[in-house]
Amino acid sequence: MNINDERLWQTLMHSATIGPGVAGGLSRLTLTEADGAMRRTFASWAADAGLQTTVDAAGNMFVRLGGAMDGPPVLIGSHLDTQVAGGRFDGILGVLAGLEILKTLKENDVAPTRPIEVVNFTNEEGARFSPPMMASAVFAGVETLDWLYARTDRDGVRYGDALAAIGFCGEAPVGKPADAYFELHIEQGPELYDEGLDLGIVTGAFAVRGITATFHGETAHTGPTPMARRKNALVAAAIAAAAVDEIGRAHAPIGKATVARLTAWPNTPGILSSEASLTVDARHADPFVADTMRDKMLLALAQAAEKANVTLKIAAEWRFGDERFDQGMMENLRAAATARGATHKDMLSQAGHDAYYVSRVAPTAILFCPCVDGVTHNEAEDVPRPAVTKAANVLLDAVLARANRP
Amino acid sequence: MNINDERLWQTLMHSATIGPGVAGGLSRLTLTEADGAMRRTFASWAADAGLQTTVDAAGNMFVRLGGAMDGPPVLIGSHLDTQVAGGRFDGILGVLAGLEILKTLKENDVAPTRPIEVVNFTNEEGARFSPPMMASAVFAGVETLDWLYARTDRDGVRYGDALAAIGFCGEAPVGKPADAYFELHIEQGPELYDEGLDLGIVTGAFAVRGITATFHGETAHTGPTPMARRKNALVAAAIAAAAVDEIGRAHAPIGKATVARLTAWPNTPGILSSEASLTVDARHADPFVADTMRDKMLLALAQAAEKANVTLKIAAEWRFGDERFDQGMMENLRAAATARGATHKDMLSQAGHDAYYVSRVAPTAILFCPCVDGVTHNEAEDVPRPAVTKAANVLLDAVLARANRP
Repeated sequence: MNINDERLWQTLMHSATIGPGVAGGLSRLTLTEADGAMRRTFASWAADAGLQTTVDAAGNMFVRLGGAMDGPPVLIGSHLDTQVAGGRFDGILGVLAGLEILKTLKENDVAPTRPIEVVNFTNEEGARFSPPMMASAVFAGVETLDWLYARTDRDGVRYGDALAAIGFCGEAPVGKPADAYFELHIEQGPELYDEGLDLGIVTGAFAVRGITATFHGETAHTGPTPMARRKNALVAAAIAAAAVDEIGRAHAPIGKATVARLTAWPNTPGILSSEASLTVDARHADPFVADTMRDKMLLALAQAAEKANVTLKIAAEWRFGDERFDQGMMENLRAAATARGATHKDMLSQAGHDAYYVSRVAPTAILFCPCVDGVTHNEAEDVPRPAVTKAANVLLDAVLARANRP
Repeated sequence: MNINDERLWQTLMHSATIGPGVAGGLSRLTLTEADGAMRRTFASWAADAGLQTTVDAAGNMFVRLGGAMDGPPVLIGSHLDTQVAGGRFDGILGVLAGLEILKTLKENDVAPTRPIEVVNFTNEEGARFSPPMMASAVFAGVETLDWLYARTDRDGVRYGDALAAIGFCGEAPVGKPADAYFELHIEQGPELYDEGLDLGIVTGAFAVRGITATFHGETAHTGPTPMARRKNALVAAAIAAAAVDEIGRAHAPIGKATVARLTAWPNTPGILSSEASLTVDARHADPFVADTMRDKMLLALAQAAEKANVTLKIAAEWRFGDERFDQGMMENLRAAATARGATHKDMLSQAGHDAYYVSRVAPTAILFCPCVDGVTHNEAEDVPRPAVTKAANVLLDAVLARANRP
């Protein structure tokens, strides 16, 4: 039994027309009109296949294929939202491959022992509402629905209001027992592509240590104010940002450290900025090294504040990457890959995924497929069609093995 | 003859209530409703004193006291707009002291030989529409009215539309012959205050060299993307910003170098920024050193681009500070200060002023009064009332000497 390769590709290419970017990719921010349109299209594809869609109060969508037994379903999922300059496959592949698997099973009259459901998690990217993966966090009981609804975007719009506005605030409670959760995702790095491998079996996660810091100085004239009297918060943020990048380079090639966001106020010609904020993170395969990188970032932030004569406040710190994935499900994936003749290796995930949160409440596994040159979060993101087909067929076999196990 | 100290102070304090900030200062951005309200109040004060106000097509306002002779007027002026976190005196003192001088002359039945006019130049600050001093630039014939109208703020609103919206697009042509231009302004630096002097006679300007640079990189995932493959434009801007601040410190205490604005796109967690822009400037009393500082900034920008593996484009460069002020008017100010028992020194201006542009078309002088601790472009900006009184009386005498000269 094989998935319908042509049909899966068509749904991916159709998705790529909903909320397009400016350079061939997607700019489908969560809970926008484009996201709403994609969600309606997704639900209509499910309905056309005779599959029912349920929406929970966080906006997470579940498409169900019943099993011979009732009970907790095997979940397949990812997300349909994108970055502001996102690709056509990041997240989307995992959801649409899941739907294709359900269609394939249904038209082959295969009734799995356990139900199988495809899930689209809301706002994995965190590009509009921060932090990322917030709806899977509520699904896993890590955050509350009230917290979720109160998140605001840069225009002050609440998540709860944006969700209602596109008509996807469902009635189902958020969170439910699951037998397993499979997530097929592009690697978002260059390893598989560079090594010419078909698939990656994710055994664990890079440790991530994030910090949001705010600097407080004083506004003053950009001209006459002597250098020694300046308290330019923007300078502190810039010095710290440069230092964080250095920390990443010092720990390369395994380690990474990132300056992702820097804001300042008033940030206008003629006036020194009294406030600046910086969001940084460090990632490493070894959690002890990641901790060291975090300590170095904190030191760099403090030194930058001292240099610029401003005060530093650590507004937030976060960490993830302690996730443990399910050995039996990894074995399902390895066996399916081998049977399909797909080359593969075990590897770590370096990006965050909804699977991280779901792994707290259900056995979980992630399957990676290569993306060209490792390019992602970029409109040029690409995956060759044969790679999509191979990954979806391996996922089909692994899911079925899990759903049919005794 | 003395100005009415109580009346001048009341107008300054009344102005401080129109477009207030959050910390005791002002946030009266140009061509906003608050600016419109201040302009109407200013014109009503003039009308109450029997003085007529003319508005030109750039929004510049002129309040006129006729002279015994007709002919080009002696101008006194500055600006009524402020930074987003501005003070109660920056610019405002020069305009309201000018109005108080006209009132004083009128109620003392003093008819000067030449007409005297007080001018409020639109958008000196450049906090909403960039660059600063744009309406005095048109007054001086350096820029055109079409150019002025087409400038846009961050929301895309055109200067011409904003001017019409507050009802201050006048019919008078922009620019006219002037016998002289006096500008009283707070020093915006700490020298006079630290040295306990009453006044500064401005003999020239610091040389200013400004650059707006843009960096172009590529969006990518903040996690798995190897450090060596990253093209994070935000990192380039941060490295360059830190280097510019260093250049300023290396040339202190005379030299200053400033990072005033840094923007990036998408500037969002999860994604590296493909574009970043940086506005910097360097200032020095010696134009040759200012040129050296500019060269160092250009080198730092190029090195930052190379380090972050992005491309650099110099979007704009500007320079000012070659202004020459009028020796006779400086002598008017020195003589008036000495006669009033006001301590004073000659000094350079480090900030830009409308006087810089006006000096291209009319003899010009600037008089500085101290501001407490040199704090400015900050809501805490303050000038003691006796300092205001002394400066306004010296200005009165100098203006009258100029207007009455044979």
